[in-house]
Amino acid sequence: MSELVGNLLVGQSGGPTAVINASVAGVIQEARLHACLRGIYGGLNGILGILQEDLIDLHRETAPTIEALKHTPGAGLGTCRYKIDFKKKPAKAAQDMDRLFRVFQAHDIRYFFYAGGNDSQDTAHKLHLEAVNRGYEIRVIGIPKTIDNDLPHTDHCPGFGSVAKYNACTVMEVAIDIGSMATDDGACGVIEVMGRSAGWIAASSILARREPTDAPHIILLPEIPFNEQAFLAKVKAVVAAQKYCVVVVGEGLKNPDGTELGADASRLDAFGHPVLSGAGEAVAELVQNKLHTKTRSIKLGYAQRCAAHYASATDAAEAVACGGAAVRAAVEGKSGFMVKIVRTQAKPYHWTTGLQPLEDIANVEHLLPRDWISEDGFTPNEKFVDYARPLIEGETVVPTKNGLPVFAVLEKHRLARILPPRA
Amino acid sequence: MSELVGNLLVGQSGGPTAVINASVAGVIQEARLHACLRGIYGGLNGILGILQEDLIDLHRETAPTIEALKHTPGAGLGTCRYKIDFKKKPAKAAQDMDRLFRVFQAHDIRYFFYAGGNDSQDTAHKLHLEAVNRGYEIRVIGIPKTIDNDLPHTDHCPGFGSVAKYNACTVMEVAIDIGSMATDDGACGVIEVMGRSAGWIAASSILARREPTDAPHIILLPEIPFNEQAFLAKVKAVVAAQKYCVVVVGEGLKNPDGTELGADASRLDAFGHPVLSGAGEAVAELVQNKLHTKTRSIKLGYAQRCAAHYASATDAAEAVACGGAAVRAAVEGKSGFMVKIVRTQAKPYHWTTGLQPLEDIANVEHLLPRDWISEDGFTPNEKFVDYARPLIEGETVVPTKNGLPVFAVLEKHRLARILPPRA
Repeated sequence: MSELVGNLLVGQSGGPTAVINASVAGVIQEARLHACLRGIYGGLNGILGILQEDLIDLHRETAPTIEALKHTPGAGLGTCRYKIDFKKKPAKAAQDMDRLFRVFQAHDIRYFFYAGGNDSQDTAHKLHLEAVNRGYEIRVIGIPKTIDNDLPHTDHCPGFGSVAKYNACTVMEVAIDIGSMATDDGACGVIEVMGRSAGWIAASSILARREPTDAPHIILLPEIPFNEQAFLAKVKAVVAAQKYCVVVVGEGLKNPDGTELGADASRLDAFGHPVLSGAGEAVAELVQNKLHTKTRSIKLGYAQRCAAHYASATDAAEAVACGGAAVRAAVEGKSGFMVKIVRTQAKPYHWTTGLQPLEDIANVEHLLPRDWISEDGFTPNEKFVDYARPLIEGETVVPTKNGLPVFAVLEKHRLARILPPRA
Repeated sequence: MSELVGNLLVGQSGGPTAVINASVAGVIQEARLHACLRGIYGGLNGILGILQEDLIDLHRETAPTIEALKHTPGAGLGTCRYKIDFKKKPAKAAQDMDRLFRVFQAHDIRYFFYAGGNDSQDTAHKLHLEAVNRGYEIRVIGIPKTIDNDLPHTDHCPGFGSVAKYNACTVMEVAIDIGSMATDDGACGVIEVMGRSAGWIAASSILARREPTDAPHIILLPEIPFNEQAFLAKVKAVVAAQKYCVVVVGEGLKNPDGTELGADASRLDAFGHPVLSGAGEAVAELVQNKLHTKTRSIKLGYAQRCAAHYASATDAAEAVACGGAAVRAAVEGKSGFMVKIVRTQAKPYHWTTGLQPLEDIANVEHLLPRDWISEDGFTPNEKFVDYARPLIEGETVVPTKNGLPVFAVLEKHRLARILPPRA
């Protein structure tokens, strides 16, 4: 494989995680070790910014800033939900693709790394194929990122361990709070967590349970159709036994007819999905009104995916490693792959990185296996716990000032634009 | 003052905080230094458990367990919302009072400490007066506790600093997340925090702001009637300038007519009950529907008051000190007082404890002064920031096991009951 000399471009896409910047830090730190990688550029707001030639020079960021990215939430480069949609908008998609390659060419981009979930890996795959078609030499590697943990072929996704850790910690704390207030009248707490179709996040709250009677007592997964009667019976039994009950609800919880609990079909997001604001609230109202048990709800929302102050050190280390592995693979000549995490040993947990062709990733959604869930559907079982437990190990250290975290702030030195503005 | 020899009883009341157990630890650790305090007992679930003679022997808890209470959320002894209501239920109240003194007498309780908010200080006050009337020698001291920070005469309340720290951290993280996703379409995040009538908690989220353009961009306080038009104009202006806007909403936000937002009786759930979606959700829907800006909401609920994993070390130290000061005051012969925190110097922050007669505390609510709030009502000003900033300093250290906190678990050795069951 001949050495490919040129510039590197890295972008972030989709919803941020607590460690998506750790992957960018991994890319930059590894890239600085390879002479063939001349410029190290960042695309602002992913594909959307690259289309607009919004590029920054990451060589001009200091080493401590790059290191601090490892504990900084959000997407340091900005992110987007922009989709190159060949199916629904073929003319626009072709135009976009053309523009992207003009930007690549203008800035001699020969290495492109894209950190994201399903849609983003799909974008990376299309760019790889387009480059082959055009005979434009560029190496494209996807970096896995999603709190939802729904990418196939990778053991798990960077971002998942941190959301699991924060949510489990929150469940422990809320359970102690509610449990300590519970008298003979009983009390119930409902915590809504993210996860539209995959229940990995909701399931991972089981890690809060150290003793059999510990919270969460019930986990409502999007994969298991909601059985109102069985659910209410279970809440009643738990409250009778322990005076309180903590329920974790995945936001995408569905009724048996497939409709989402608390979904307001009149509000749609950029992808045309209904905005979900209310599965937790709907479940809380049900308990309150049918069982007359005092019920309080919590909706963690975005707070759970950006909780860098309690991120998993294991997750952060893996995110950094995925970034580094992406660069090494590209320098070695690979293109059209996504980095994946491979579990080489279960106990004690050992892992390494590997590569998976992007064509195997795009638009495949990895759901929680049914045999990792209890028969009654209300809790993941030991198989899941063994899988998830190591991913939340270790605490990242976030420096503080005046009692609050100090996060990295990129200086974002813009590259001069070469092309005329996007049509 | 003659030495009073007898047993000590400590109880917790009302909603827990991240540091209410730290005050109990302070009581126990100080009590162990005084020979006149023979038994150290805890009342389970506050007054409610004491009425039922549910007492535990705190001497039998290990020193490491007591030390670990300092970072353990919830109420270690259990709590209650039970009120001795002489106004509405005079016969029941007299009966309760009689029973409490029978329990005190049966267990030779000569020192009683009650950690709680307004209602609990009222209970402590009534017990003190009743003891004087009956000629029963007991020393009663209240220990301040409330995340709401609405007790008068104390500079602030233990519990407030920790909720302020956690919420401000959450606002910083969520702001980075939303800001990094914001493109030209704009984005808005709404975070609902606790505080039914006092806006101290909502106001304290201002501590997240280091630069003038930082979040939170708007804080909606329960003290300031909601001005929909001015609010929407401000959101629009912030989004125009910065592409995103983070709004913090106190749960008790009120319309100009005094009704609470989100307590909208026109929206009915499946049972025909009004949907109490909460102020945050109501504000989020308003932004979404009127400005068509993509808006996501978070409801921190109880998670904010039990977030021991990110509690304020200053707050925890003050809570411990309030417990210790209560015991010293009682041993010195005082009764009928609440411990208060006195700020002896503003910069650098110095504090000590003091005593305030309980008659000055009960049922007085300390609201945010109007001249600590900006003219437009949307943010607290420098006076507030100078006041609140030192209270979130320092991070408590919580040990972990398998990546999650380890909290104290009391063994709760029950005292043998002496009296017949409560009628």
